[in-house]
Amino acid sequence: MTDNNGTNTKGVSNNAENEQIRQQRHKQRQQKLQQQVQQGIAKATVEKGLLLVITGNGKGKSTSGFGTVARAVGHGLKAGVVQFIKGSWECGERNLLEQHQVEFAVMATGFTWDTQDKAADIAAAEQVWARAEQMLADPAIDLVLLDELTYMVSYHYIELEQIVRALQNRPSAQHVVITGRSCHRTLIEMADTVSEVQVVKHAFDAGIKAQRGLDW
Amino acid sequence: MTDNNGTNTKGVSNNAENEQIRQQRHKQRQQKLQQQVQQGIAKATVEKGLLLVITGNGKGKSTSGFGTVARAVGHGLKAGVVQFIKGSWECGERNLLEQHQVEFAVMATGFTWDTQDKAADIAAAEQVWARAEQMLADPAIDLVLLDELTYMVSYHYIELEQIVRALQNRPSAQHVVITGRSCHRTLIEMADTVSEVQVVKHAFDAGIKAQRGLDW
Repeated sequence: MTDNNGTNTKGVSNNAENEQIRQQRHKQRQQKLQQQVQQGIAKATVEKGLLLVITGNGKGKSTSGFGTVARAVGHGLKAGVVQFIKGSWECGERNLLEQHQVEFAVMATGFTWDTQDKAADIAAAEQVWARAEQMLADPAIDLVLLDELTYMVSYHYIELEQIVRALQNRPSAQHVVITGRSCHRTLIEMADTVSEVQVVKHAFDAGIKAQRGLDW
Repeated sequence: MTDNNGTNTKGVSNNAENEQIRQQRHKQRQQKLQQQVQQGIAKATVEKGLLLVITGNGKGKSTSGFGTVARAVGHGLKAGVVQFIKGSWECGERNLLEQHQVEFAVMATGFTWDTQDKAADIAAAEQVWARAEQMLADPAIDLVLLDELTYMVSYHYIELEQIVRALQNRPSAQHVVITGRSCHRTLIEMADTVSEVQVVKHAFDAGIKAQRGLDW
């Protein structure tokens, strides 16, 4: 059956009807989904300072930690950052966040293969950890990023018990983010949220240089 | 054998000697490691605009993307952000980064289960994608974050071919970061660096509310 213009009117009407049915089904599916989501949200009522751990071998752990700091600062919260290992070179995040009253404590020794001096590394670790302890005791600080802290535990530079104690005794509303590979299982057990970043592939392995603004 | 103070001098001397040997060994190991690292760095000579994909179900993908933007901005680079899905609510990162001349294009529809209107969602997606295409054609923009773009592909809101074309034709020095779950394999193949963020645990599942400054 065709109309004057040769269009299959039955087809058109069927198509329009089908489209309406599809839209109706989409709406029903989304309403069901919304209900599930809302039930989840209704159950999640606790508000407290959280411990986040971002571990694994993939790229993006520290960046995610700094992204959280940027987010907190964007809401007018006060954040402190303690950088273990890194910090002997320029750092884009620091340039930006220090303009927003984020307090930085930096170990600034660089990698162990560059210092080649364990005793000096330990002394530097203890010094910067003392700054971390101050932040973890300060209720005026809403969020503390302990960037690459995990290595301090695996290298035995800082005692795990010291870290656990400082985390447990911190102000109850204070959030803490810990980043670094191979996070100790005790910290993972203590944490509220744990993400593991895995490498699928990495540009560096394909001969691509670490680049300013992207990698540091 | 003891000295006048009853100290085992042989033991003391042995301990000092052992400590020296340990330090020497540490230094040798670190020197070898340094050599390996430097060889790796020497091989990595290419500089170009990279495509980073941060996918997986874990927390920290968007945050990592925004951390990269903060890093780039901290070096004085120019960044643009396109937010798909999200954006109908306040966002700490945006508050901060807009103060630093970061351009934002926001789909601002919220989740599909809240809009329940596929046609309107597609129209909004196409509109914000047009902004993304402009950024991906602009050599003055050093870094483009396409936050939650992956869903636009899996929902069939934006054609994969369109995205691939825009990425391929972008200025050669421009970096792009794509975040979101279930990234399409074609984008993963195109990417220089791919990280997959996996959930080990999530506070929300333990009844803890999404919190300002930490979760949004």
